[in-house]
Amino acid sequence: MLARDLAAPFPSIRRDAPAIEAARLLAGQNLPALIVLDERDRPFTVLPGPDVLRMALPRYCLDDPALARVIDEAAADLFLRELGDRTVAQCLPTPLRELPVVSPDATVLEIASVMARARNPLVVVATRGTPMLGAITLDALMDRMLDA
Amino acid sequence: MLARDLAAPFPSIRRDAPAIEAARLLAGQNLPALIVLDERDRPFTVLPGPDVLRMALPRYCLDDPALARVIDEAAADLFLRELGDRTVAQCLPTPLRELPVVSPDATVLEIASVMARARNPLVVVATRGTPMLGAITLDALMDRMLDA
Repeated sequence: MLARDLAAPFPSIRRDAPAIEAARLLAGQNLPALIVLDERDRPFTVLPGPDVLRMALPRYCLDDPALARVIDEAAADLFLRELGDRTVAQCLPTPLRELPVVSPDATVLEIASVMARARNPLVVVATRGTPMLGAITLDALMDRMLDA
Repeated sequence: MLARDLAAPFPSIRRDAPAIEAARLLAGQNLPALIVLDERDRPFTVLPGPDVLRMALPRYCLDDPALARVIDEAAADLFLRELGDRTVAQCLPTPLRELPVVSPDATVLEIASVMARARNPLVVVATRGTPMLGAITLDALMDRMLDA
């Protein structure tokens, strides 16, 4: 069983798409993360769900969550305004998260190692510099490792 | 809408439980993370899914995933052996992840800030030092922030 056999389609978003679209995709489909693609549809980075929240919150809330309590504004309004017209690219964290990627012939253990190292519930299956074959989620991998 | 209104039951595990049980719970229920409780059922830490993989992999795989490819052993066998008879407590990462916790009267923005700061898809709702009221997932929170 190699990465190419485990790779499955997974929702992705272009880095020039509106950030609010990333938030809606994540929320609507109950996803642990999104794959961000470049303008040639090659995998660029993985955006974990909590990072989408980070994009949408004012800096002082992250520094001190207790300050969030005193904001006299509906959370939804603030969320939409902070994301505003920004693109996904403009909201990505710096430094950028390394793309957790494995080649199509990676073994189950190799996939697990890349996922654990990146602390990311998702790895992309691709040959570097080409569109991805698909992705493998932590769930799919754990099922494979525990069922055998 | 406050944390107490959004808190819902969420799977948890005692820190003295077998680590393999944590892995099975996570895999079987498609969870982003597990809540780890102390021996008095008070929330102790949150164990994100990828960290469970980390518990189960030999150190050299994490240092260099390419080495994982040369291991001549079924992933499942290795996984079970590495977890072996260890407890959850014995497998927790050091330093321990700070418990993302909010009080029952936290606002939606405060919950979002704690979640984003901890980069964790889950926050525990509890008064410090007592059993938890429940937990709020990233999905539940995003639904609330985007639907309004």
